[in-house]
Amino acid sequence: MKFTRFEVNGAVHSGVIKDGAIKQIKGDIFGDWEFTGESFSQDEVKQLAPLVPNQIIGIGANYVPVKADLPHTLPEIPVFFFKPASSVIGPEEDIIIPEGIEEVKFESELAVIIGRKAKNVAESDVLDYVFGYTVGNDVTAPQFFHNDGHWTIGKSFDTFTPLGPVIETDLDPFQVKVEAKLNGAEKQNSSIELMIIPIRKMISYLTNVMTLMPGDVILTGSPAGAEMGRSGDVIECEIKEIGALRNTFAVARESAKTV
Amino acid sequence: MKFTRFEVNGAVHSGVIKDGAIKQIKGDIFGDWEFTGESFSQDEVKQLAPLVPNQIIGIGANYVPVKADLPHTLPEIPVFFFKPASSVIGPEEDIIIPEGIEEVKFESELAVIIGRKAKNVAESDVLDYVFGYTVGNDVTAPQFFHNDGHWTIGKSFDTFTPLGPVIETDLDPFQVKVEAKLNGAEKQNSSIELMIIPIRKMISYLTNVMTLMPGDVILTGSPAGAEMGRSGDVIECEIKEIGALRNTFAVARESAKTV
Repeated sequence: MKFTRFEVNGAVHSGVIKDGAIKQIKGDIFGDWEFTGESFSQDEVKQLAPLVPNQIIGIGANYVPVKADLPHTLPEIPVFFFKPASSVIGPEEDIIIPEGIEEVKFESELAVIIGRKAKNVAESDVLDYVFGYTVGNDVTAPQFFHNDGHWTIGKSFDTFTPLGPVIETDLDPFQVKVEAKLNGAEKQNSSIELMIIPIRKMISYLTNVMTLMPGDVILTGSPAGAEMGRSGDVIECEIKEIGALRNTFAVARESAKTV
Repeated sequence: MKFTRFEVNGAVHSGVIKDGAIKQIKGDIFGDWEFTGESFSQDEVKQLAPLVPNQIIGIGANYVPVKADLPHTLPEIPVFFFKPASSVIGPEEDIIIPEGIEEVKFESELAVIIGRKAKNVAESDVLDYVFGYTVGNDVTAPQFFHNDGHWTIGKSFDTFTPLGPVIETDLDPFQVKVEAKLNGAEKQNSSIELMIIPIRKMISYLTNVMTLMPGDVILTGSPAGAEMGRSGDVIECEIKEIGALRNTFAVARESAKTV
């Protein structure tokens, strides 16, 4: 099932995409919900990020370029980081390049959406706690990384986490490819098999540290090929089974979206 | 005014402490609220963390031991980090030492609670966006810091962010001292003047990166003297004008709080 969030007539709703139409729903997508009977065509609405995340957790440097490069022993402590929920935007919204810099990096990623409270969950069971999957763009300004290795500021600017276009609940995450096109030219296209820390291990590790909650989003890392984008560039992050997440880079002064 | 959150008869409420009693309130502490007319003595209730944070942002290494050590030029990119809301506990709850290690660090801090949406706010105006202040203990397991400088895991374990006992809205943050006692012995006791990046500059910087929201908590750094605590140790973090936040360290296997 494909879940979406959208704005129509000034109100925000959730919906399910069925036969090309958006069937409005009400309730909690992680709990009880029902169809309202209202239906919209995709042209009638403004599509939003498919959820308002509870927390966003990312993992750094998690892909090798080719299978032969996969390490024999995994790192004892993976590089995880948080991004603020305030950095989320939806499809077609502008990614705002902060003042003082000219370009920021795009990173196309498979994003896992947690659906149930999860603590100390074994690798074999973690997918039972996953609600679905979307595409994430972990936009990054390495110019704002701290010398001592702290990434927080460089990952946290408003508009730095495009998510969408939908949450796909019927997906075998181990079969997908993570792609990105910059101005139509392919830049990223890798199988999930090239992940250093695989999805089950990553989520299980996290649940041994913290209680994951419904609405937590885990950005599972970006494959080889991520590059910088500049004002006017169009970035499409795509996983075929979920859809394409398209955004345009813009500089702060050109955009009405910053306060 | 001193805001509290508490559990009584299985239900969670907010309240205001007045003449030693807890006057129950309903509504949104950041918006419209009113007294319900119910009142409790502090002995009747279980005090909880005074809020469920939206996000928790910390700043690293932000105090010098003595005023002469204050740097003449401030770091261009401060070391900020996020802690998950799942790490929050209230007064008197146990801080659980993760399996495999014997001790974790306490860090007593002044915690700023944001009350209004804040973006691109000048230093002179940021305090208008502050709702109040509480005491935070930024519990840290440096054993889980990544070699490359990433602190995320070492800061993110469940129970690693005690907050409380109350939110004080009538406080001059520039007059307070941040204290900690381990098993009754003073370990930390510093004036806010010893902060490297002062509160106004810290919050203004953050609002130039991300939109701060009501319920965001900023942990403003811990003064000299933070040490490690072991199972059975009692840590009291205190700011006299707010109150003392007392917690006991416990090992995972002794506690019924982990799942």
